[in-house]
Amino acid sequence: MINERYENRWEKIMEVDGEGGKRVIESLKNIAPDLGRYVIEFAFGDIYTRQGISLQQKQLVTIASLTTQGGCEPQLNVHINAALNVGLTPNAIVEAIIHCIPYTGFPRVLNAVFVAKQVFEERNLKVNTK
Amino acid sequence: MINERYENRWEKIMEVDGEGGKRVIESLKNIAPDLGRYVIEFAFGDIYTRQGISLQQKQLVTIASLTTQGGCEPQLNVHINAALNVGLTPNAIVEAIIHCIPYTGFPRVLNAVFVAKQVFEERNLKVNTK
Amino acid sequence: MINERYENRWEKIMEVDGEGGKRVIESLKNIAPDLGRYVIEFAFGDIYTRQGISLQQKQLVTIASLTTQGGCEPQLNVHINAALNVGLTPNAIVEAIIHCIPYTGFPRVLNAVFVAKQVFEERNLKVNTK
Amino acid sequence: MINERYENRWEKIMEVDGEGGKRVIESLKNIAPDLGRYVIEFAFGDIYTRQGISLQQKQLVTIASLTTQGGCEPQLNVHINAALNVGLTPNAIVEAIIHCIPYTGFPRVLNAVFVAKQVFEERNLKVNTK
Amino acid sequence: MINERYENRWEKIMEVDGEGGKRVIESLKNIAPDLGRYVIEFAFGDIYTRQGISLQQKQLVTIASLTTQGGCEPQLNVHINAALNVGLTPNAIVEAIIHCIPYTGFPRVLNAVFVAKQVFEERNLKVNTK
Amino acid sequence: MINERYENRWEKIMEVDGEGGKRVIESLKNIAPDLGRYVIEFAFGDIYTRQGISLQQKQLVTIASLTTQGGCEPQLNVHINAALNVGLTPNAIVEAIIHCIPYTGFPRVLNAVFVAKQVFEERNLKVNTK
Repeated sequence: MINERYENRWEKIMEVDGEGGKRVIESLKNIAPDLGRYVIEFAFGDIYTRQGISLQQKQLVTIASLTTQGGCEPQLNVHINAALNVGLTPNAIVEAIIHCIPYTGFPRVLNAVFVAKQVFEERNLKVNTK
Repeated sequence: MINERYENRWEKIMEVDGEGGKRVIESLKNIAPDLGRYVIEFAFGDIYTRQGISLQQKQLVTIASLTTQGGCEPQLNVHINAALNVGLTPNAIVEAIIHCIPYTGFPRVLNAVFVAKQVFEERNLKVNTK
Repeated sequence: MINERYENRWEKIMEVDGEGGKRVIESLKNIAPDLGRYVIEFAFGDIYTRQGISLQQKQLVTIASLTTQGGCEPQLNVHINAALNVGLTPNAIVEAIIHCIPYTGFPRVLNAVFVAKQVFEERNLKVNTK
Repeated sequence: MINERYENRWEKIMEVDGEGGKRVIESLKNIAPDLGRYVIEFAFGDIYTRQGISLQQKQLVTIASLTTQGGCEPQLNVHINAALNVGLTPNAIVEAIIHCIPYTGFPRVLNAVFVAKQVFEERNLKVNTK
Repeated sequence: MINERYENRWEKIMEVDGEGGKRVIESLKNIAPDLGRYVIEFAFGDIYTRQGISLQQKQLVTIASLTTQGGCEPQLNVHINAALNVGLTPNAIVEAIIHCIPYTGFPRVLNAVFVAKQVFEERNLKVNTK
Repeated sequence: MINERYENRWEKIMEVDGEGGKRVIESLKNIAPDLGRYVIEFAFGDIYTRQGISLQQKQLVTIASLTTQGGCEPQLNVHINAALNVGLTPNAIVEAIIHCIPYTGFPRVLNAVFVAKQVFEERNLKVNTK
């Protein structure tokens, strides 16, 4: 029963989070494999597959949540990559992070923007800053 | 100069946040009027008027940020109303809040959903739960 | 498939969280029934049924997490009741909250202790303060 | 030994926090008297009596920390009263809270300003808002 | 007087936190020796020596609080070591961290698990992942 | 109009935050230049130039807010430097951080003190630890 949920979602995680997500799951193998399973089954299986908001909207929500939470730079890296994978532009990603300033202040926003900067450089993407 | 920024934005705040936002600004009059001015000039003037993500995307980002932050129930009330004002459905709002579970856990999500429930009841709106 | 996970867990939630948990699930019916389902399936089904730490240890961990998180007074109320239901004494619950002082400071600890005080009064329990 | 630390500090707590602080300690009597003792001995005894920054500077730091922490409205109430007791003006208190906007965002600052508003009204104090 | 509290506790800190705790205290010598003293006197002297929950229960509470707080990876390292020193198994530690998922979300839990992974590797311990 | 606000503030940022602040603004150029502009216009222009508390009081408030927020070590570095630039002594800075212990707990305070330690070493300053 578990396995069915698992397999359906594994494709999803690969489609959205790509290598970054896969690497997280694998690094959990020797210490907390069930945690990796919950990421796949619950976060991807139950939550990401929901209807009602689009994949792009989901990634904007995710980025806003992680930016505001603070201290989640590794997860922001995975999800900024995921946001690009579902078609959000670098500009839209930066705009979403900037939009959090009034709610969470500059420090968390600066931390998130610097993660985005690194991701864009790794993928050779440019933000249109004019 | 300040006044120009202020007036342009006041229309914006009324359009998006409606009565809720106006009431906050007014309650600040006798204690911290500049704080009200910054909400209008900076949060609305500088941030809300930016291009690159839509008004609906901005409200989803706002709701995700406030849900994750915690302890911001009054501001969530204003912004869930704002989200409805720019055309998001009750379902999309609830979906955005639910999407935060993996990042911020159930308690903050439950708190946010109960704010949404109250707003929807006040506005006589129903979530399609089937 | 989903239903099997659901039913097994519903007994669990009743055994541990009792009326408080049930009331939360029911209040979600008209706005976000799936959220209630995730609480039952994931939080209770997947997480609470795990082996390796006892039910009492799980409640201590839960209380520490909710105390530290802040702004989760309604959830603390449910879980302090749950802690009593699985056999923790009022003293042990207060000790666990006090133990969080060095990590999260006095304000969150005071907030949590006042929730405990209310729960103990409702259940007519006394802390041995000598 | 404990008692000596305790007595010295009790005068301190009365001088700085006044009735608000005393009421908190008393409300802990039947549930966690040691928690009240730690507030007196450690927070007041060890920390408030330190040299190097003035009593007024300490209250500004306290207000900034509680504002940023979020969900600490009862404690903010006590410490805004304490700030007035050591001679800070309502204006300086509001300025300190406003100064936190760039670091913690508008929602927590709004929550703190509304606590200050209530305290000033109770003490019949006016902020010079011009 | 201070010294008596200090000495009693220093043995405690060595017994529970071992080298990690000692190194923290020493790194504070040239900048904030009193902070080190408060860790020893208050966190260890006043809090850790309390009765009512066991040393193992205290470490589970500590790990849950630090996991939930976020951004406390260095302190988690010290306290995961301490948890092992008082006899908790690697499995119980991982279970306690996993148990925080519903309250604080996956990112903080993942961060904590990766700290545990590093500690276990340094001490040549294996989690039984069955 | 924007430019006038910008230029006035740029001098301010250089006077208070010095090289650290300048470097942050510059690192934003290719990804989010407007974010740098908001730091200058809003955080420095609108907020830092306010009357009612002194520059030194503002830096104490800033340090308390960043210490409590957690995960803002890069920003703490900039603002501990800024605190020194406006005349606060290393001792007063450490005292302000220590004063946050009762509100935010030891871990965030330890993290902030270690940032201060690094800044003081870079500037060849000593804390009088008596």
